[in-house]
Amino acid sequence: MSWHNNVVREPFYRRRATIVFMKAVIALGGNAILRRGERGTAEEQFAHVRTAVRQIVPLIAGGDAVLITHGNGPQVGDILLKNECARDTLPIMPLDICGAESQGMIGYMIQQSLENALAEDGIRRPVISVVTQTVVDPDDPAFTDPKKPIGPFYTEGEAALFSRERGWTMAPSDASETAFRRVVPSPEPLDIVEHPSIRTLVNEGFVVVAGGGGGIPVRRDGTGRLAGVEAVVDKDLAAERLATGIGAEMLLVLTDVPSAFLRYGTPDQAPLGRVSADEIETLLHDGHFPEGSMGPKVRACIRFVREGGQTAVITSLDLISEALAGTAGTRVVP
Amino acid sequence: MSWHNNVVREPFYRRRATIVFMKAVIALGGNAILRRGERGTAEEQFAHVRTAVRQIVPLIAGGDAVLITHGNGPQVGDILLKNECARDTLPIMPLDICGAESQGMIGYMIQQSLENALAEDGIRRPVISVVTQTVVDPDDPAFTDPKKPIGPFYTEGEAALFSRERGWTMAPSDASETAFRRVVPSPEPLDIVEHPSIRTLVNEGFVVVAGGGGGIPVRRDGTGRLAGVEAVVDKDLAAERLATGIGAEMLLVLTDVPSAFLRYGTPDQAPLGRVSADEIETLLHDGHFPEGSMGPKVRACIRFVREGGQTAVITSLDLISEALAGTAGTRVVP
Repeated sequence: MSWHNNVVREPFYRRRATIVFMKAVIALGGNAILRRGERGTAEEQFAHVRTAVRQIVPLIAGGDAVLITHGNGPQVGDILLKNECARDTLPIMPLDICGAESQGMIGYMIQQSLENALAEDGIRRPVISVVTQTVVDPDDPAFTDPKKPIGPFYTEGEAALFSRERGWTMAPSDASETAFRRVVPSPEPLDIVEHPSIRTLVNEGFVVVAGGGGGIPVRRDGTGRLAGVEAVVDKDLAAERLATGIGAEMLLVLTDVPSAFLRYGTPDQAPLGRVSADEIETLLHDGHFPEGSMGPKVRACIRFVREGGQTAVITSLDLISEALAGTAGTRVVP
Repeated sequence: MSWHNNVVREPFYRRRATIVFMKAVIALGGNAILRRGERGTAEEQFAHVRTAVRQIVPLIAGGDAVLITHGNGPQVGDILLKNECARDTLPIMPLDICGAESQGMIGYMIQQSLENALAEDGIRRPVISVVTQTVVDPDDPAFTDPKKPIGPFYTEGEAALFSRERGWTMAPSDASETAFRRVVPSPEPLDIVEHPSIRTLVNEGFVVVAGGGGGIPVRRDGTGRLAGVEAVVDKDLAAERLATGIGAEMLLVLTDVPSAFLRYGTPDQAPLGRVSADEIETLLHDGHFPEGSMGPKVRACIRFVREGGQTAVITSLDLISEALAGTAGTRVVP
């Protein structure tokens, strides 16, 4: 099937007056850019970004309006570690500032690489990366039960010290019996502060990079004032908020497996193809998609199609074309 | 005088159909946000940003289209120092990446603080920070004579080592007889890559934060591909490129003195008021404005009015209103 033949909710971006294009949101994993086992040099990260954006060029070349969002786990991990290494000299920066730094850094790499890839193919479409804040509810239950590990590993003594001195919640690491890590809340994203701006940009034909790392988590006080909070928003759940907010028809959640699987990791695992939101919600409740990996992706897809989106696809970066053609990935439909 | 009565080159942003507003570019110094003698905590920096944006609100409230650009010297200095502190564990990031990080970080602080300040006054104007790249000429003479000191201070031994290992140019520091610093080229800004996007945003009524730290310096190869370069672009010269590129009527260069001075620092120093581009160029050639401080600001103002701008003002943050009213600052006119 061709996306251009689909019914879309509203005409929005036209290269030629007769053709109506799609709005799609693409969520790239942070691990797609800074890979485990690598040092994470700028050269390595740029090389992975170039590979990633190459897969997105055909979508843009076809005339679709594209918003790219991305994870920042490994990058913000490095920023936090650098803060720790410099702690005797410089103040430790809070998570909102570190997240903003990672948005600038990753946004730059994607923006420049995508501009280059488009120019190579003779496509004139401006790319723009924007700093993005995600509103969360300070009463979200996640704040009373911080679970998301971030930053470097600490000894038990350091963990006790920073728990006292910095007010951090520390927890034993899964990866090591002797190491501790800081854990922070991962509240649900309510809204994207920059929605109106991002929607305008997408509708004007800009390729927008936004919502990096799930957006910088902020809360609104009683008078509407924004302030950063020490939390991390899941980037796929934030991608759904972005996609719904701009009226996208499609949400593409990219990961390192070709689709969601039933009984993943067991001998009788089975890939999941086209599925309704209700069907995959039942599978989610039956425990097929662990909360630490596929769970939030599935929840993002369900929410997207229930909020008016047409299709949400979970697949890997190299299968974008097949996923658009309907021959790969897990496709969640209303 | 009121800016709203001025002749403007083109009508662009209208709150009401009968009133034509101005486009202004405001260049904030990096030292206005992270001050010498302070630790540079997030709280300190946010407090200074809040003070700074308060001065800009009246301009926006009056309906003017405003683009804010800012320095990043102290912030990128801290990022470079953190890289150095973590060098045994993590790769050193190149200057373009560090500059992009600082754009995310400072853009976030300005964006959030300005949104809050506008909301307090009941003004609904969206604020958006964008990652900005500045094109420089790889044949710029600055590349053969790097002069701009950046990052931490090193011993002579470290300087020799990093000169060999990292290919850095090191120079004795002015501030200390025993310390060395890395020096990088500071080439002239040719163009802002994101000009079309930024112009659209400003014309649509967004308050745009762009060009942080002079923009991320990039070069274009023969085929037009962009790549980061190890350099620093002067933020006031980049502000001129932004202002000219969006067709701004006014460029406001903010610093820590109320105006440019003749014979600055001598007993008979005298503030400089309204002056033509030709007049101030003569004073520049006569050595009144040192290249390390007021020189680039004066050069930015001259270039701006010669490229079609109406007025360029050099003043301090607290004198914006007076400068707009024509009673403070050095005003450069064609």
